[in-house]
Amino acid sequence: MKKAQRIAVIGAGAMGSYYGGRLAEAGHDVRFLVRRDYHAVRSSGLNVTSPDGDFLLTHPFTAADSSEIGTVDWVICALKSTSIHSAQKLVQPCVGADTRILVLMNGLGLEDHFAGWFGEERIFGGLAFTCINRGKPGNVHHLAYGTVTLGHHKNNPAEIERALALWSGSKTSIVSASSLLKARWEKLCWNIPFSGLCVAGGGITTDRVMSDAGLRAAAGALMQEVICAGNADLAYHGEKAVIDGEALVESMFQKTSTMGAYRPSTMIDFVEGKAMEIDAIFNEPLRRARELKVPAHGLALLTALLRSLNHGR
Amino acid sequence: MKKAQRIAVIGAGAMGSYYGGRLAEAGHDVRFLVRRDYHAVRSSGLNVTSPDGDFLLTHPFTAADSSEIGTVDWVICALKSTSIHSAQKLVQPCVGADTRILVLMNGLGLEDHFAGWFGEERIFGGLAFTCINRGKPGNVHHLAYGTVTLGHHKNNPAEIERALALWSGSKTSIVSASSLLKARWEKLCWNIPFSGLCVAGGGITTDRVMSDAGLRAAAGALMQEVICAGNADLAYHGEKAVIDGEALVESMFQKTSTMGAYRPSTMIDFVEGKAMEIDAIFNEPLRRARELKVPAHGLALLTALLRSLNHGR
Repeated sequence: MKKAQRIAVIGAGAMGSYYGGRLAEAGHDVRFLVRRDYHAVRSSGLNVTSPDGDFLLTHPFTAADSSEIGTVDWVICALKSTSIHSAQKLVQPCVGADTRILVLMNGLGLEDHFAGWFGEERIFGGLAFTCINRGKPGNVHHLAYGTVTLGHHKNNPAEIERALALWSGSKTSIVSASSLLKARWEKLCWNIPFSGLCVAGGGITTDRVMSDAGLRAAAGALMQEVICAGNADLAYHGEKAVIDGEALVESMFQKTSTMGAYRPSTMIDFVEGKAMEIDAIFNEPLRRARELKVPAHGLALLTALLRSLNHGR
Repeated sequence: MKKAQRIAVIGAGAMGSYYGGRLAEAGHDVRFLVRRDYHAVRSSGLNVTSPDGDFLLTHPFTAADSSEIGTVDWVICALKSTSIHSAQKLVQPCVGADTRILVLMNGLGLEDHFAGWFGEERIFGGLAFTCINRGKPGNVHHLAYGTVTLGHHKNNPAEIERALALWSGSKTSIVSASSLLKARWEKLCWNIPFSGLCVAGGGITTDRVMSDAGLRAAAGALMQEVICAGNADLAYHGEKAVIDGEALVESMFQKTSTMGAYRPSTMIDFVEGKAMEIDAIFNEPLRRARELKVPAHGLALLTALLRSLNHGR
């Protein structure tokens, strides 16, 4: 086995616990910043069920404050994007000269914040295509899927290799993206229509969007807006990568048709009365579309509705 | 006073009770088809509160079945548009050779149904800009506003005069529309954005739409779509009338800014878990926009969401 890395997981919710747990299982020194489940994890460990193999970390390193963790080789920031404004303070104590930071969060533009705080060369983004829920305190249930797409904020190939090396040997499915920005926009092509319509449609599952002609057409129209905005944004950032809209739309509908009555995380937040990740998933793409003069009437309408539904949460 | 007319009010909900009551108060022979409040109205009468003067009809003619009413000079059909498919059966027993029918309902295309059933020359449309709620059984509360715009299905000026004559002498504010179709589309210019966004925004009041920049912009964009579809529909029907979009948008926003925390009827249906009038207010305008190749992406998205929210009601 390669040299074990020291890893701080900032935000040990479902995602952070699962992926941090997989790295700990692979022999790395993983240190979890735990809030809600602190006492449960300290007393009973971190218990994960997964189709890829259950595991129990009996005595994981848990911290209630990042300063207890110290500097690390890798920070995995798995906060909900609604907590982006507390991320700097939480991550800072773990960052040394050579620390890399993986932003394992939903939405657009989050890496820009980290690059501004900590310098752009050390920033990576991770996009999880997965279904992981928290169970009772200290328990995490990985239900299905699980591939994480990794990219580097400046698309540096050597840095991407370094990130892949971290995960090799762990029971995870990791792929790399040559353009992180393109990967982010491509994921929005799913998240915006499906999360958005599942929420604004009243807390419905993705199969309802797929089977209703009007909602499905609306999803397709939203994808077109996102693709146009994404390609304009890629060009604006000087990237050569281009989203192949036709192939992507087909693939998104095809994948979703196999997902059954899937509940997007934003829809779960909605029905549970929690704050939804509107800024990073909807507002920021809309802001960029407007700045780049890309028509996005559907996205604007949907975003306004979601902000209203999110009001006061 | 002119010769009293015999009038059947089909659907004595808030609107039918109020306007039928005003005609009874003015001396006409008004006969109410009453469902929900039948026993209350028979025992205690119809009790109306209004800024234009309260009134009580102690023993109004109430029928549980239209055949008890017999043929009349005027039918006022004030059913909810979700009941359009039972309208023919309910109205038929009241229709004689010279009977006129006023369709006092929300939405587009309802008069076409009546014209198909009973012949187009006798069909009128009424658009109520008003806030009337039902109270406890037998009670109706007219809260504010109250102008009814009357038009004739074929825009026949002599027929419009006949309709106006019916209401003269009653405590109502009636204006006539030289183009009923234009009046319907102009009302949709308010109903589609404000009712739609108040529902899909989570059951909010119109002041929230007015004060939120995103929702307000979405309302404006929806109005533009409705105006374009309306003008195409007017041209398609060979009408010379044209909606003055700029003036209308300004007037709609101006009027709404004075309405405070107004609850559109569709929003009240939504929060009370009742069936919403989606077909007549949203689907039919969208269908026409599509048939006339007028872009209506926002309307399509909003309609799909409302249909989803209305699912199973």
